[in-house]
Amino acid sequence: MDNRPIGVFDSGLGGLTAVRELKKVLPNENIIYFGDTGRVPYGGRSTKTILQYAKEDIAFLLSKDVKCVMAACGTVSSTLPASVAQALPVPFIGVVEATAKAAAKATRSGIIGIIGTAATVRSKSYEQQLKALLPNCTTVARACPMFVPLVENGYLGKGNPITTAIAQEYLQPLKEAGVDTLIMGCTHYPLIADIIGEVMGDSVRLIDPGKETAHAAQQILQQKDLLARNNGKADYFVSDSVDSFRTIANLFLGEYAGGDVTQIDIDRYQLTISNP
Amino acid sequence: MDNRPIGVFDSGLGGLTAVRELKKVLPNENIIYFGDTGRVPYGGRSTKTILQYAKEDIAFLLSKDVKCVMAACGTVSSTLPASVAQALPVPFIGVVEATAKAAAKATRSGIIGIIGTAATVRSKSYEQQLKALLPNCTTVARACPMFVPLVENGYLGKGNPITTAIAQEYLQPLKEAGVDTLIMGCTHYPLIADIIGEVMGDSVRLIDPGKETAHAAQQILQQKDLLARNNGKADYFVSDSVDSFRTIANLFLGEYAGGDVTQIDIDRYQLTISNP
Repeated sequence: MDNRPIGVFDSGLGGLTAVRELKKVLPNENIIYFGDTGRVPYGGRSTKTILQYAKEDIAFLLSKDVKCVMAACGTVSSTLPASVAQALPVPFIGVVEATAKAAAKATRSGIIGIIGTAATVRSKSYEQQLKALLPNCTTVARACPMFVPLVENGYLGKGNPITTAIAQEYLQPLKEAGVDTLIMGCTHYPLIADIIGEVMGDSVRLIDPGKETAHAAQQILQQKDLLARNNGKADYFVSDSVDSFRTIANLFLGEYAGGDVTQIDIDRYQLTISNP
Repeated sequence: MDNRPIGVFDSGLGGLTAVRELKKVLPNENIIYFGDTGRVPYGGRSTKTILQYAKEDIAFLLSKDVKCVMAACGTVSSTLPASVAQALPVPFIGVVEATAKAAAKATRSGIIGIIGTAATVRSKSYEQQLKALLPNCTTVARACPMFVPLVENGYLGKGNPITTAIAQEYLQPLKEAGVDTLIMGCTHYPLIADIIGEVMGDSVRLIDPGKETAHAAQQILQQKDLLARNNGKADYFVSDSVDSFRTIANLFLGEYAGGDVTQIDIDRYQLTISNP
């Protein structure tokens, strides 16, 4: 047993979908969440900058005495070298690895679709993980840049005509390619999973990165005997103003909303590890 | 005469609509443009962060020896205190002031509509300028957060069903209020002026900030005898990868496209002014 909190970070607030899933599967765990809202999005930045930011984010979580670090950010999860992850004093769980494993397990035809931000699609990180797990699989990736603003502006709910029209346009090539499994490779997308599912059809299995990462965390904590018996409190930290946090947080957390939110100076945190 | 370039900056590439207008009215001026594509959008960020970014952007332009600084970014133009603008070593031209003047001149009924990003609307900067110019005017403001992603993702052209549906939703309260003049208070909006105009109706005069700011620059340079006799070269700088610059730049610049584009490290530039 280990009553220290689970640390979760993301470039913004999308990673709260992982917090929601954690709260579902591990209701007795305390959570420390950091959303780097002052420097979002990471996707367009250089590898060097992404690594620097990721190390600062991890250093902040470690300063809060977390028992594991979860990168809900696809960009960080794709960029952080295994050597850095392994040198951390606590287990590291990346969203890309957990999600690719679930997709590789789910597919029957071996044709896997990936949707995400332009940066995630360009990074080919999901493809690389999938090819390592299933060398003969076929992958079809498509950037869906309108999905994040649509979600953040509330164009949600099955049948929403605008989001449905845009989803039909984006998803057509994936349907034509005959994917049987679709990775929703951006933390925002599970909020329109009903629309994506309706457009793709019932036979396509949708993979939710937040859910898969939460399950991966559960497994690792169980294996290492690190599960907690807490009241399931969450504390939120952001690097920009806390003003707009509530509205967006409620959107992502749904019934699991609640918890203190604090603004921090993220670039004050430096990661010092023995063998980086 | 002053052959130094005009400096223009924006949080992203929307400010290129001001460059297009500058090239129309001042074809002999050289232009240095900085688009902070690595940190776009500014709109959702805190005032403190916006100010820090604006100062870095201005410092970069000053490092290029510009003869004036044009903030094509409504968010910056609304946030930067007059004290900072006045302490600069060259004239500062903000999009908000120039645009408000044009709207005050255009209105007959005194009922003026303002559309912009959430941050621009929240700042009430257009209202404040308009009230100073026309104390009895009525203003009706509405945030249109979906317009920027729609423009950047090419949902353009009169009759585009998605952009038209969203425009109808956003503009309904302005129509009901009976505005006769509408400030398109975000650099991106003029690219869907045809759709906005169709929804608002022919009797409503649309005010294009890029056009009004270019005219304001022309007037200031004339008054101060700072006009140039150059070949009208433009150099573009961005803080994110230059890869996607061409496509989006062509969208904004139209027939005025062309010029070198370079990626820079914007947070290396610090503004040092005697009396900030």
